Amino acid sequence: MATLRETGEFGLITKLAQTIGSTTRLLVGIGDDAAAWHQPAAGMVATTDMLVEGNHFDLALTGWHDLGWKALAVNLSDIAAMGASPSFAFVSIGLRPETRAEDVIDLYAGMRALSDESGCFVGGGDTVSVRSEIVLNVTVLGSVPVGESDTLLRRDRGRPGDVLAVTGTLGGSAAGLRVLQRGFSSSISVAPPLAAQLIEVHRRPQLRLAAGAALRRVGVRCAMDVSDGLLADLGKLCAASGCGATVHAASLPLHPALRDADPEHARAWAAAGGEDYELLFAAPAAVWRAAAAALAAVGVPVTDIGRLNAERGVRLLDERHQELRPAQTGWDHFA
Amino acid sequence: MATLRETGEFGLITKLAQTIGSTTRLLVGIGDDAAAWHQPAAGMVATTDMLVEGNHFDLALTGWHDLGWKALAVNLSDIAAMGASPSFAFVSIGLRPETRAEDVIDLYAGMRALSDESGCFVGGGDTVSVRSEIVLNVTVLGSVPVGESDTLLRRDRGRPGDVLAVTGTLGGSAAGLRVLQRGFSSSISVAPPLAAQLIEVHRRPQLRLAAGAALRRVGVRCAMDVSDGLLADLGKLCAASGCGATVHAASLPLHPALRDADPEHARAWAAAGGEDYELLFAAPAAVWRAAAAALAAVGVPVTDIGRLNAERGVRLLDERHQELRPAQTGWDHFA
Repeated sequence: MATLRETGEFGLITKLAQTIGSTTRLLVGIGDDAAAWHQPAAGMVATTDMLVEGNHFDLALTGWHDLGWKALAVNLSDIAAMGASPSFAFVSIGLRPETRAEDVIDLYAGMRALSDESGCFVGGGDTVSVRSEIVLNVTVLGSVPVGESDTLLRRDRGRPGDVLAVTGTLGGSAAGLRVLQRGFSSSISVAPPLAAQLIEVHRRPQLRLAAGAALRRVGVRCAMDVSDGLLADLGKLCAASGCGATVHAASLPLHPALRDADPEHARAWAAAGGEDYELLFAAPAAVWRAAAAALAAVGVPVTDIGRLNAERGVRLLDERHQELRPAQTGWDHFA
Repeated sequence: MATLRETGEFGLITKLAQTIGSTTRLLVGIGDDAAAWHQPAAGMVATTDMLVEGNHFDLALTGWHDLGWKALAVNLSDIAAMGASPSFAFVSIGLRPETRAEDVIDLYAGMRALSDESGCFVGGGDTVSVRSEIVLNVTVLGSVPVGESDTLLRRDRGRPGDVLAVTGTLGGSAAGLRVLQRGFSSSISVAPPLAAQLIEVHRRPQLRLAAGAALRRVGVRCAMDVSDGLLADLGKLCAASGCGATVHAASLPLHPALRDADPEHARAWAAAGGEDYELLFAAPAAVWRAAAAALAAVGVPVTDIGRLNAERGVRLLDERHQELRPAQTGWDHFA
């Protein structure tokens, strides 16, 4: 039950290094000025995400182990959205001195579990002290084989006429968070088994690394991950690609537990919820058919949800082709 | 004078991307899920550092521009300490919504200035909101030519009998910080011109990238940068190398302004001050002579300060070979 004030920075680092494990892929690991490895020629990618307590997570709702898992998962989602394979993660954490060392070890054990699953090794990091909010920053490196850099999935490669599609289901994560925040007596009154399913979706977003790689291999060139809500993220894809989009609300793939728990608002959750970590992509019809087949082969559901078009703006249409205007279309961190 | 609440996250990112500039070295830059580039085969290194307001910096003492410069500089110092060349930096920042956008742009301009000087391009990042302490995380990648990974400078390559040496001067940065913190009426009463010099040393640590590369090329294999104070960092080098060290206090290279400002305590500042960002290295005598010549060729002063030896522990000796015990030997972030 020792706190960090008692174990000290260097005692903590020794324990975290043990939790992370070692790998022959690193020439120099934790404990030197930098990590080092032999890097073959490659198309390399890098992404970084900062998670702040009270903003991105609440330790009353998310356990330390889950937080570690998720901090790595959100970065792996960005690597998946490029169609790349992850290699190394670098983790910085700002902790209060009164934090218990075993909680921090639990957090790193959560990262280790996902590290083992994804092949993304935690190669190093930094531990510092904060007075108030805990902060976690993860940078992940990934790659595609040399000569394949041109095939990376990008936000700016969509073209009018492309089929717009999304993997998996939407809305479950945001609904799960709401259940956690408000409990069972909230605006969505959810039966306990459904509540548990939604919470699990929020707690453990699926990894789409195999799906991203499959999309890239069959010739998809435009994709991103859905983290801020489908419509908000689609707006970014459209802005980058210089086009607009039409989405059919009836086509949105709803998480089954969400559909059962809150049928009235399920589409709104799916359209604007956030933290789905599914892949949104656009491709010409022939490539879309190949993509659907490739995703079926790796066991990942996929749904045609609309089209990109030349007219700017993102429009969400109901069955009668009337435009719907969801109240909330994603997150602006400073708004 | 717009605040981030007014500009919004995406308005801010657009301005920051303009400040950072663009480079043909990136295939995919800011605005996609990840940055991407062609990476030739290399010995690659990566380092990451988190800076927390009130712990690592105080905006009453450090301007936004200087903070940006320094956040990148401390990471470049780690790259220098491996003998590598930096390539890309990834920057995450947690800001209060009431922060002025122009201050954040000033911070990125500070990074840009050092980016131009060092060839380390800011390839991407993340901007999030915090309620209290501002947090800045920088991850820097670097490399040595393929086949030269074995020559990286490491903390665990010191051997008993090695000459122990340090670049530049010590103590000036810590004394400069103290002047900033306590003003001119502090325990060190410093004449204004000297105070200004010390503050400048703290504000703008020199870059030792050329020195690190030169050390590696002449066959030095053991080095680290001095960030937590000479004795504390030397303790880490010795622990990693499984040896001890003897340092001659009279040999410590004192910053001239420190020597003039506080002659009585100058050695203590040099031995334990911190934030020097000089390179501490150990090498057999013949390699040390080559290193001294190579550093002279790149215009970097260097001083023989002692020896590594088989007996564990770090001993600081005065002119009569009596052991000195400085009150403070560096920083433990949770102590």
